[in-house]
Amino acid sequence: MQTTKAILEAAKQAAPALASAEKDKALEAIASSLLASKEDILRENRADIDAVRDTMSQSMLDRLTLTEDRIAGMAQGIREVAALPDPVGRVLSRTERPNGLVIEKVSVPMGLICIIYESRPNVTSDAAALGLKSGNAVVLRGGKEAYRSNAAIVRAIRAGLEASGLPGALVGLVEDTSRASARELMEAEGLVDLLIPRGGAGLIRSCVENAKVPCIQTGTGICHIYVDESADLDKALDIIENAKTSRPSVCNAEEVLLVHAAIAPAFLPRLRTRLTEDRAAKGLPEVELRLDRAAAAIIPGTPAGERDFDTEFLDYILAVGIVDGVDAAITHIARHSTGHSDAILTRDGAAAEKFTRLVDSAAVYVNASTRFTDGGEFGLGCEMGISTQKLHARGPMGLQELNTYKYIVRGSGQIR
Amino acid sequence: MQTTKAILEAAKQAAPALASAEKDKALEAIASSLLASKEDILRENRADIDAVRDTMSQSMLDRLTLTEDRIAGMAQGIREVAALPDPVGRVLSRTERPNGLVIEKVSVPMGLICIIYESRPNVTSDAAALGLKSGNAVVLRGGKEAYRSNAAIVRAIRAGLEASGLPGALVGLVEDTSRASARELMEAEGLVDLLIPRGGAGLIRSCVENAKVPCIQTGTGICHIYVDESADLDKALDIIENAKTSRPSVCNAEEVLLVHAAIAPAFLPRLRTRLTEDRAAKGLPEVELRLDRAAAAIIPGTPAGERDFDTEFLDYILAVGIVDGVDAAITHIARHSTGHSDAILTRDGAAAEKFTRLVDSAAVYVNASTRFTDGGEFGLGCEMGISTQKLHARGPMGLQELNTYKYIVRGSGQIR
Repeated sequence: MQTTKAILEAAKQAAPALASAEKDKALEAIASSLLASKEDILRENRADIDAVRDTMSQSMLDRLTLTEDRIAGMAQGIREVAALPDPVGRVLSRTERPNGLVIEKVSVPMGLICIIYESRPNVTSDAAALGLKSGNAVVLRGGKEAYRSNAAIVRAIRAGLEASGLPGALVGLVEDTSRASARELMEAEGLVDLLIPRGGAGLIRSCVENAKVPCIQTGTGICHIYVDESADLDKALDIIENAKTSRPSVCNAEEVLLVHAAIAPAFLPRLRTRLTEDRAAKGLPEVELRLDRAAAAIIPGTPAGERDFDTEFLDYILAVGIVDGVDAAITHIARHSTGHSDAILTRDGAAAEKFTRLVDSAAVYVNASTRFTDGGEFGLGCEMGISTQKLHARGPMGLQELNTYKYIVRGSGQIR
Repeated sequence: MQTTKAILEAAKQAAPALASAEKDKALEAIASSLLASKEDILRENRADIDAVRDTMSQSMLDRLTLTEDRIAGMAQGIREVAALPDPVGRVLSRTERPNGLVIEKVSVPMGLICIIYESRPNVTSDAAALGLKSGNAVVLRGGKEAYRSNAAIVRAIRAGLEASGLPGALVGLVEDTSRASARELMEAEGLVDLLIPRGGAGLIRSCVENAKVPCIQTGTGICHIYVDESADLDKALDIIENAKTSRPSVCNAEEVLLVHAAIAPAFLPRLRTRLTEDRAAKGLPEVELRLDRAAAAIIPGTPAGERDFDTEFLDYILAVGIVDGVDAAITHIARHSTGHSDAILTRDGAAAEKFTRLVDSAAVYVNASTRFTDGGEFGLGCEMGISTQKLHARGPMGLQELNTYKYIVRGSGQIR
């Protein structure tokens, strides 16, 4: 067994090989290698599943399961990443100084990127492809329950790298899946240039508390939609149902609805019908409404508890509150939002302008569903996660966000 | 006495007031207020100096001392910041998606920026001006020995803010100058959006170890100059003397010289003459050379100790080593550099290209002194410090680096 430190060191040392590599050809070789290794990958995935079949929920098992189709999808994903423009080597600015120095600010890889993630093995190939395309070595630390699947995928990736004349060590998989190895990554100063935790609130929390290496917080989303007095209520119903129910388990799903007091008596009964009875009639899961006192005076529902406006439900549950107007909505969001995605529904340009200016979130929407906060939907072509912090990257992280820059200064003997 | 938490909370709450403020007029009012308060500032500065006169070195006392001229310089600095372009509200990208969503990526302030710094009171007004111009509230935590000076400067700044109709709380000064307050800033999650430590290695280290808020490492510079076989040796002497001696106490000064083995016998004796005898003849401080074994076989000097190639001397000391060529120089720099500024002196385009591609530092130079790594010299107009990390900002940090961005997404009812 290789120690985590040895895996990191090997990856770090391999990273410069990418500077002059034909990265897209290597990604193509990796995609082919994945397809060629599908028997091995499926066998190891079955072993992972057999070990947890009796103890894991059906939805978790589904996330863990690979099929031929899913492996084909992973290979296709790698080819799509290969087809994206190279983020490395962009001249971000160029200035010639009066003393003749020419200063270029150029995008360069971070070096070694580590990703800590949970049970979906397809993240293994996605993250490796994004990391390599952006010129970085990648060390992955997946969940224990997916270890054999991840190891088979990484073997295939390494075979593809080696077939392209690149060191396999460019993509490493941490063999120790205990908490200790996550801590080791967080503390690997000088080795890890960027750590991206992708997972639940506990993992993110642990990174904030413990990381000594540069780290990007991803994914916690308490997303708000505020329905202004002037909103188009028909569109509002469509947007809210979409934001809440199209995929409740993801971070860009709506968790809190704020409604202007003036329209609440007309709107809330329609909302309730739409999210409960109408959905039940179609055989869809109903949404449980958790109502503040003012909302509860208008429609029936569960009285909101103390934490309901600060909870990422990730479920068919929606907290509903009444506010006096856009200022009160902005104040509520400032207090309760995780800074992920928040929306105003309005036909009032001034209210929209105020909301977009003062709501301090990665994505601020006017008249659209919060579900669009996603690298693909934003036109980035891919995504390594969604940053909810302000340093370096905010919102969906594409290839550019996996780069840093350096200044290259060319002179002819200048002194100061 | 206000608690540190209360100061942070007041600043954070005040920050949105800047969104619609006439920032440049407020900066002009602050500059005027500083000049009008010069008696108060000078009196408090004398009190600070009297308290440490017998225990502080002359150079430290000089850094602490304010004069009418220095206060005029501070006011002038604020006016120069006011004259720079506003970094807030730049549309960094704009895309219209096939579904009609218009997605703008717009620069916005961080929110609340904190700076921990040491004894130069002029940093107080510089940092406040840069923070305000970039739309941020600022909380400053200066050194104990400058507390009364800093407090007088902050009083003047606040008077200027209030004269402009803005809350004085936008600029706060931490009253507790013990280590505990620095820790409090590092741990003030949800309040501090960006922490910038400006000071010695101990402070930076403590931030890396302890910060739970986003933090930018600044300033440690073990800067290298590599003299290639093909270098113009006359220019090399000028550049090395400039990089080492023009201001040895700053982070962009050269600390290590690497010389190609083929030219070392010709170059090192000339170097020694230039940095010792020639300087002595002009009454300038001589440079102590700390030589690796190969260099010591060519010229006399102090034998380099184990740590001399890993030390930021900040003094008239230069570590000198011999290498076999550009590859060996790159390897040495990868092992020993702090990633600040490193230079190659060469007439060989291929060597220059290799060096700039593979040296992983904030600023990589060809044929110029490392001393140019500076916001003003880079044309940024100002500087909040020099980042030696890769996340968010690298190299000199100007106004743009004190901003983050958000996505503003405008739709007409789009759902996913």
